[in-house]
Amino acid sequence: MSSNGANVLLVGQLYQDFILHVDEFPAEDAKKRASKLEIRSGGNCGNTLMVLSQLPSVQTWCMTSLGPKEEAGSLLLGLENQGVHTSTCVFHDHGVNPSSYVIHAANTGTRTIISYNEAQDITLSDFQQKVETAMSDTKQHFTWVHFEGRNIDNAVQQIDWMHNKAIKENWRDRLTISVELEKPDRENIDTFLDKGDVVFFSKLFAEKRGFSDAPSFLKAYSTRCRPKSILFCTWGAQGATCLQRATNQILSAPALNIDQVVDTVGAGDTFTAGVIYGLSHGFNVLDVLTFSCELAGRKVAQTGFDQLKQQLDARWNKALDESHHRAFT
Amino acid sequence: MSSNGANVLLVGQLYQDFILHVDEFPAEDAKKRASKLEIRSGGNCGNTLMVLSQLPSVQTWCMTSLGPKEEAGSLLLGLENQGVHTSTCVFHDHGVNPSSYVIHAANTGTRTIISYNEAQDITLSDFQQKVETAMSDTKQHFTWVHFEGRNIDNAVQQIDWMHNKAIKENWRDRLTISVELEKPDRENIDTFLDKGDVVFFSKLFAEKRGFSDAPSFLKAYSTRCRPKSILFCTWGAQGATCLQRATNQILSAPALNIDQVVDTVGAGDTFTAGVIYGLSHGFNVLDVLTFSCELAGRKVAQTGFDQLKQQLDARWNKALDESHHRAFT
Repeated sequence: MSSNGANVLLVGQLYQDFILHVDEFPAEDAKKRASKLEIRSGGNCGNTLMVLSQLPSVQTWCMTSLGPKEEAGSLLLGLENQGVHTSTCVFHDHGVNPSSYVIHAANTGTRTIISYNEAQDITLSDFQQKVETAMSDTKQHFTWVHFEGRNIDNAVQQIDWMHNKAIKENWRDRLTISVELEKPDRENIDTFLDKGDVVFFSKLFAEKRGFSDAPSFLKAYSTRCRPKSILFCTWGAQGATCLQRATNQILSAPALNIDQVVDTVGAGDTFTAGVIYGLSHGFNVLDVLTFSCELAGRKVAQTGFDQLKQQLDARWNKALDESHHRAFT
Repeated sequence: MSSNGANVLLVGQLYQDFILHVDEFPAEDAKKRASKLEIRSGGNCGNTLMVLSQLPSVQTWCMTSLGPKEEAGSLLLGLENQGVHTSTCVFHDHGVNPSSYVIHAANTGTRTIISYNEAQDITLSDFQQKVETAMSDTKQHFTWVHFEGRNIDNAVQQIDWMHNKAIKENWRDRLTISVELEKPDRENIDTFLDKGDVVFFSKLFAEKRGFSDAPSFLKAYSTRCRPKSILFCTWGAQGATCLQRATNQILSAPALNIDQVVDTVGAGDTFTAGVIYGLSHGFNVLDVLTFSCELAGRKVAQTGFDQLKQQLDARWNKALDESHHRAFT
């Protein structure tokens, strides 16, 4: 890790989320008024960035494919206000920005989601150019690059280039590459397995592969991952499990006990932010797990991602301050 | 009418419409992908402006209440590209722009609509300032001011001020004030009845007031309208009816015979555009009715409002060219 703290690039798809609050889900062909409209940046990488950017001594960067720059203002504003760098975003003259429409019904608590995405994939040359420019402008290399599990074939090219560049320039030992296997049906998703120093699995992924608990899934799949990789699998209300390939040690942490589930959107993405933060700041693996479960639990207990850090247990705020202090001394 | 053609101000609520095309209406709590997303300017006044601005020798102006100016760009762009003046729009620093989310299901053809509007009303002083500035900048008075039937108490103040100003400045005979009574349940909507030189009624309004045909409705309600006013009532597939109070003559025109109903959104607003255009350009009342029904029919036979003028019968394009010629000679 650089002495200036972590310098984290997230590669994925940002969405503009329109959350429409209605008293009840509309009947087909009806007209309804929403009592409230929230417009937020969403998508896995957007959610993770909203959490990560609240924590001390992390620089955050977003690489995502969007439509015309002049129409992306409000989509990027929320991230930029949090200090996330967006100069790594790739704009296209045509098309509209990816968006999600969430109908939140008050009487049932359901969230019905219609999403739209016509964004082009990020090409290898876009990726190379954005990474080179960001690192040359800031005179810092990235300490962590995280890839969402989408457009796998393109992403694999980008990972290989990043990996080789860091080896050639002699900073591969200070770079963590992480990959996410959340949606089990994404084309060629399994090629991601041996691409990460850190690998994130979802409960859905493990279940669709025939497993009913995280430890057995991780044990079975670990042999397909990189020799020194660290694997994480979240399991909803049952917390999360981690397997370190170097030792084959398996650790688990329970989910945070919360009074009421308020909003589960982005809970997994919040867990991811916790892991990136903890491993970047020298937490031991059990602390990483516990911290990430606490962070995800606090998120589930509130709407959205604002002020999540302030909700953390005093112990963690102390650890965060210390890691901040360490990073800058 | 001014020798430079019509100079028309529409006062109403512009909406950003997000039209989501899905294969079928989603079940509550499901996740769906839309195959297409259209983002358009909508709302009654936006629809009428999209049509009116296609026709020759009309200057069009939009007065609507919006959120922050920097977030209204895409909402106004469609109108501005059509030549609609938007300097009469009223912006507010807080809040979001009014928006409508239309779920268009391909299998049933239904349109389920969720709308959101927290825009503040346009105050009398906003209205006065915008009207004075527009007329002083262009050195032209408005020849037509149309009011959507919303925020009735405020609108009535604006109508009275406009009426008195034009009398004082001696151009009231060259100004038409029109009002729209579309939604029967809008608070104090009946105070609009005697506020217009031209009054637009919807089928829904007439039905909710206990009538089952346009002529009997207009006959019964005409006594509550201004002595020289002209009243219009649309009746869906049965066309439209007009009553001129000066003579009490009732005229009707059938709806256009079209092969297939493609998109009925804004059909009434298109009819309104036809009436404003025809009466502004010296069409006789039967021609106004027939022209407006044809225009509305062409709209129903296509998606959106683009290129509507080109769809008109040759007769009408000739009349439009002649009215253009007349206006400028």
